[in-house]
Amino acid sequence: METRNCLGFQTSAVASGLKKNGGKDLGLIFSQVPANVAGVFTKNRVLAAPVLLDKQRIQSGRCQAIIVNSGNANCCTGEQGLRDAKEMARLVASALKISPELVQVASTGVIGEPLPIAKIEAAMPALVDALQSDDSSDVAGAIMTTDTVPKIVSESARIDGQTYTVTGIAKGAGMIRPDMATMLCFICSDVGMPSNLLQEVLHAAVEKSFNRMTIDGDTSTNDTVLLMANGLSGLTVAAPAQREAFQKVLDDVLIRLAKMLVKDGEGATKLVEIIVNGASSDEDADRVSQTVSHSNLVKTALFGEDANWGRIVAAIGRAGVPIEPNRIDIFFNDVQMVKNGTGCGEIAEAEATKVLKKPEFSIIIELKIGNGRATMLTCDFSIDYVKINADYRS
Amino acid sequence: METRNCLGFQTSAVASGLKKNGGKDLGLIFSQVPANVAGVFTKNRVLAAPVLLDKQRIQSGRCQAIIVNSGNANCCTGEQGLRDAKEMARLVASALKISPELVQVASTGVIGEPLPIAKIEAAMPALVDALQSDDSSDVAGAIMTTDTVPKIVSESARIDGQTYTVTGIAKGAGMIRPDMATMLCFICSDVGMPSNLLQEVLHAAVEKSFNRMTIDGDTSTNDTVLLMANGLSGLTVAAPAQREAFQKVLDDVLIRLAKMLVKDGEGATKLVEIIVNGASSDEDADRVSQTVSHSNLVKTALFGEDANWGRIVAAIGRAGVPIEPNRIDIFFNDVQMVKNGTGCGEIAEAEATKVLKKPEFSIIIELKIGNGRATMLTCDFSIDYVKINADYRS
Repeated sequence: METRNCLGFQTSAVASGLKKNGGKDLGLIFSQVPANVAGVFTKNRVLAAPVLLDKQRIQSGRCQAIIVNSGNANCCTGEQGLRDAKEMARLVASALKISPELVQVASTGVIGEPLPIAKIEAAMPALVDALQSDDSSDVAGAIMTTDTVPKIVSESARIDGQTYTVTGIAKGAGMIRPDMATMLCFICSDVGMPSNLLQEVLHAAVEKSFNRMTIDGDTSTNDTVLLMANGLSGLTVAAPAQREAFQKVLDDVLIRLAKMLVKDGEGATKLVEIIVNGASSDEDADRVSQTVSHSNLVKTALFGEDANWGRIVAAIGRAGVPIEPNRIDIFFNDVQMVKNGTGCGEIAEAEATKVLKKPEFSIIIELKIGNGRATMLTCDFSIDYVKINADYRS
Repeated sequence: METRNCLGFQTSAVASGLKKNGGKDLGLIFSQVPANVAGVFTKNRVLAAPVLLDKQRIQSGRCQAIIVNSGNANCCTGEQGLRDAKEMARLVASALKISPELVQVASTGVIGEPLPIAKIEAAMPALVDALQSDDSSDVAGAIMTTDTVPKIVSESARIDGQTYTVTGIAKGAGMIRPDMATMLCFICSDVGMPSNLLQEVLHAAVEKSFNRMTIDGDTSTNDTVLLMANGLSGLTVAAPAQREAFQKVLDDVLIRLAKMLVKDGEGATKLVEIIVNGASSDEDADRVSQTVSHSNLVKTALFGEDANWGRIVAAIGRAGVPIEPNRIDIFFNDVQMVKNGTGCGEIAEAEATKVLKKPEFSIIIELKIGNGRATMLTCDFSIDYVKINADYRS
């Protein structure tokens, strides 16, 4: 996996003592020059302190550093939480000798505990000293909570003969559904791009990636996606064709990250794409894909490698959109399990069970009443999901 | 527990070979005289064959027998499924020497497998022979799938000096959420009541009971609640005061059954009432109570006996209704965990953890922005839920 940083970006990570296991929990992303920035935040009405701060600061369209901690969400922490988020930004700005207004802050972890800001202050010199430009896996590791692997995607491409790079890191393994997720994602690029345009391409890419996945149907108070573009590649993206090319690369980076997130879903053993075709409208297809991909009964059957298509049909039926039960076809990859609403028999079931044993596959639902289509990424629901989430704080 | 049958009702159950474990799987409820009947059915758009049949037959308002099987849902079984449902009714009508039109049919179990009607036919003489009027626990047992205990509630009361009885049996342990559930419920009463009135009181009682509970957020293709009233107590309910008195008893029977269902939810170890007060409207309170009671992260924390109120706040925040995060109070029974959106500290948490260890308790959410209120019954989400549902068909 390519994990090259973009031109002019440095990252670092240290253990500050926020994580109970003593792992790295404080990360920094720094651009040598102020960058343009865009952000997408949680739609949860309870907003963590860093999200409140970031939403204000992002108005300027400018950012030079992102400081992020795991082990504590700094959420439901009242006025003190806001002061702590600001202090976190001030401390790093002071160490980097930049304006605090150019610092974005992100936190992830347990909700409702005061942020141990003294630990962050004590770790600041080491954090800034550790800045390097070779590899962003340090910060990708520091933002992990229940994640089991760091998620980094980096792609380089050319526009009008000029090479540029987009590097994204992300975390998130539970509390994940559309309208984002308990996730953080930071994307750096060395293209130049006006911040309003940056905001548009980021929104479009998030719609196609992080808003098309689910792990457990919950959403968090801290979800943040930030995209910084510092222009140091010398390439400025502005014309429609340039923008389109950049969008494709950004989409690809975010979709790859989304797949990595779902694949590393808490306890997940399978990455499953739910593809719905032939609904009355795209909105209806979306409802069906969401209902199926959130169904605990479907997800536990996936874990059990049980081709229990009846649960899929039952989920389709409760999606609240028009369907004709006796027209529904269902495929597991290319194996047809259901034809016109009834099962295809034992041979099909045996073939489908083989598909279910794979780590990645698709379930294709053909409603055959219109042209609406939608896709969701989901995972199975395992015993380990319950174990992880029953014991999360202990 | 009182399990007296109402006057003039008989029940029976036998093992016909539909259940893999050889347990009783075929049940019969028979009224000596034709009764008035009301029914509430699943809102799922995929309807099992017996539901399609019942919805037609219930138009007449008359019913004398209900035949029910577990082990096979007779759903997604096409035209053959409908023929099998009708045949099941015809077979029992013939043995009982009544009109097939007076028979309602219910099935529960795996979706998508043909109903082995020959097994049901072979078992019919024994089923009718076994009819008795002492105790309805036989049929309550025969409708169990993943239930661990039979659910029966019987209450006797007086109206204008005349005693009558309402007896309900129910099954359902998974695939349960409002808009009913993978549940069957059959209620018998020896009152006399016009079928249109019967339909009204049944709807009202279902709203307060089976539509206020969740186990796993899924709904099924077979959910059926039937209420038969045969008038053999000599009491006819018609006047508003009589109707109100009967409604109270019926509500109580159904609410008690609903609590039994949630308590016996697949893998459940706790019965938890989610009470939401102070929303802008009852509808908003409903949204909040549903979101919290369906949240997998809340439910796994309940299983882990972890007073992780942050997950409750996060679920409130994603309910999609107006809230003021810094006004929210949360209590576990009488222990306040959250005051004005922030935690009440370690002592409160220790007390709340004691509450969490109880088998039944309430979580009270005070939004403090209006007068809207709602309540839901939910359960925790355990390792056993996943085990049960990963292996259901094997």
